[in-house]
Amino acid sequence: MDYEAFFGAEIAGLHREGRYRVFTDLERHRGGFPRATHHTPGGPRDVTVWCSNDYLGMGQHPKVIDAMHEALDRCGAGAGGTRNISGTNHYHVLLERELADLHDKEAALIFTSGYVSNWAALGTLGSKLPNCVIFSDSENHASMIEGIRSSRAERQIFRHNDPEDLDRKLSLIEPGRAKLVAFESVYSMDGDIAPIDEICDVAEKHGALTYLDEVHAVGLYGARGGGISERMGLAHRLDVIEGTLGKAFAVHGGYITASEKLCDFVRSFASGFIFTTSLPPAVAAGAAASIRHLKGSSSERARHQERVARVRKALDAANIPYMPNTSHIVPVMVCDPVLCKAISDTLLDEFGIYVQPINYPTVPRGTERLRITPGPLHTDADIDHLVGALSTIWQRIGLRQEAAE
Amino acid sequence: MDYEAFFGAEIAGLHREGRYRVFTDLERHRGGFPRATHHTPGGPRDVTVWCSNDYLGMGQHPKVIDAMHEALDRCGAGAGGTRNISGTNHYHVLLERELADLHDKEAALIFTSGYVSNWAALGTLGSKLPNCVIFSDSENHASMIEGIRSSRAERQIFRHNDPEDLDRKLSLIEPGRAKLVAFESVYSMDGDIAPIDEICDVAEKHGALTYLDEVHAVGLYGARGGGISERMGLAHRLDVIEGTLGKAFAVHGGYITASEKLCDFVRSFASGFIFTTSLPPAVAAGAAASIRHLKGSSSERARHQERVARVRKALDAANIPYMPNTSHIVPVMVCDPVLCKAISDTLLDEFGIYVQPINYPTVPRGTERLRITPGPLHTDADIDHLVGALSTIWQRIGLRQEAAE
Repeated sequence: MDYEAFFGAEIAGLHREGRYRVFTDLERHRGGFPRATHHTPGGPRDVTVWCSNDYLGMGQHPKVIDAMHEALDRCGAGAGGTRNISGTNHYHVLLERELADLHDKEAALIFTSGYVSNWAALGTLGSKLPNCVIFSDSENHASMIEGIRSSRAERQIFRHNDPEDLDRKLSLIEPGRAKLVAFESVYSMDGDIAPIDEICDVAEKHGALTYLDEVHAVGLYGARGGGISERMGLAHRLDVIEGTLGKAFAVHGGYITASEKLCDFVRSFASGFIFTTSLPPAVAAGAAASIRHLKGSSSERARHQERVARVRKALDAANIPYMPNTSHIVPVMVCDPVLCKAISDTLLDEFGIYVQPINYPTVPRGTERLRITPGPLHTDADIDHLVGALSTIWQRIGLRQEAAE
Repeated sequence: MDYEAFFGAEIAGLHREGRYRVFTDLERHRGGFPRATHHTPGGPRDVTVWCSNDYLGMGQHPKVIDAMHEALDRCGAGAGGTRNISGTNHYHVLLERELADLHDKEAALIFTSGYVSNWAALGTLGSKLPNCVIFSDSENHASMIEGIRSSRAERQIFRHNDPEDLDRKLSLIEPGRAKLVAFESVYSMDGDIAPIDEICDVAEKHGALTYLDEVHAVGLYGARGGGISERMGLAHRLDVIEGTLGKAFAVHGGYITASEKLCDFVRSFASGFIFTTSLPPAVAAGAAASIRHLKGSSSERARHQERVARVRKALDAANIPYMPNTSHIVPVMVCDPVLCKAISDTLLDEFGIYVQPINYPTVPRGTERLRITPGPLHTDADIDHLVGALSTIWQRIGLRQEAAE
């Protein structure tokens, strides 16, 4: 067959649908975040980033940067091997202790990314637990879906954040069978939060393991940044808490925390853990510094929530509709891929504001949006400029200016 | 069910088989590599690392370290998002150009690891190419196996490094059907090298795409470090060349290089590429510096090969059997998991030499080995010490001292 023609046709299809992705070539400015340089064919331009998952700006925190410089100077660039074959660096060991402590668990296991941690952990648990059924929230992240798919375990999808539906589905499975309930605390695109306590009640009633993805919550919620499970005092009821080092902690990598035995089991059997070079020592050192800082400091979390509230208030005042939720994510709904991209382009080109359009497959078709993530380093002037620009564009293109449902 | 008891029983099984893995807690010394500190319960000890995949010691090269420090100071710790959502940093763009140039391809695409690059690229090509059959070398790495498995494409396994068997198997498939041949250049555990030209001949005859994993060859072979495909002048015959930034380039991450359209296709459809935070800018900067240096400098490659030859000669003189091959990997066969671990422990505890025992599932049961990777920074005295220690142990435990088959 003509492979190049096939690839070309598939890409043309994306263009036709208006969802061909053009990556925005940025250079973030340490010390100046959320400012960045946008590299364009016409030359570099300054922009303000409004869609980063470096939610607290920890990516430029002196403690994080200093820890990375120091590890780089002590141990060099990479780890040089898999965890088993010369690639366990002392910084990995320290980071895993820091993470176990963060979630008050016996042990932790780090992976090369949050994606890999979900994929590898769910894939291994689902495939090795005998005759396991995995109950998966209908809005779970791609990495969880791929992990469950890869496990080839029986999969039951329960209605999003619906413990009653979960209960019904669990009731249909033989009592003695291995079961695992996989869900998230903060869902990244809608920003809604799971009823963790009710889901734990249902899981406990049926003897199911609980697996909670807290990637959009760790560092951001709870007295020490342990996520929604910490804030709700529920960490002990979750068998596995999964998180990322690449969002609020602002470095790179993913992890699970759980019992000593569960972590040892995944460590010993997960292909995606065993057969891959471990994280650079400097990455582990930076992540550990970030976690340690956020365990002891709540000012970033407080300022973060205050900024989010201020953005919402300004959007309300300007009658710009957004999807309400109780987290830090502000989805301004456009519901059309071409229009969403056009608005994003205008924000970038005309106003120096960078908010990436979110389209399928990240969100369902017809729910395309601008996903705004206010951070503690956005100033009042930044907020006014953002909302002013949106208001101008909304008026220009005649978009409905009222609260979304 | 009692999950903890299940995990405990599975781990006990590993102990019984002698293949429970204990990670060696190291601290590599920048400037002193291959020296490292081994953190033990009894306190820190100095060791010499003999099993690193930082094959050339580039992990401590001043150009690499400087580039990482600089990027860290310019852009901060992490990328802050997926490639599509605020996580494309200018360093990623520059790194992809460097990689495309390295393999003389139109484009490149970086992933969070070599494992993910194989898994995501093969998974996407295999699942999206209509009715595709993937022909996979029987000794392919776990990441390729998982990618092919994940694609759910029809899979045909051909005999290791056997173009005739591949030809036979390709002949049985309808001519017009999409086909992909996936193989490696240097196989990491045996160190043997694929007959790339003959495999390309067969693939071309049957109209199959060729996908070559060069992770244990990039940086190490070819005039500019483009791998075995460069050394043999065959890069243009390979549709995809996959590599890692974490071994000879000594930082972290993986990549594919291919046509513009193929890379754009994988970029647009691969879940493992789309839904994951991109590499930290400093990692991308360090990797690009490492690649650039090794494009222009062959002295590390020459010294590497010389050291490998010297180790083999010393082993020959001491009658320590190893598996012969034409690459840089020196597998000293022990063929028993418990004995292999015991020898490795003795080397570490008594001689300050660190060579991790390699056991199942990394190699087949009964082929357990010490996989020695000499590097340009191992001195003559290091080599004498290693071979002297092996000789002492071999005599002590009465192991056969003769050439392996």
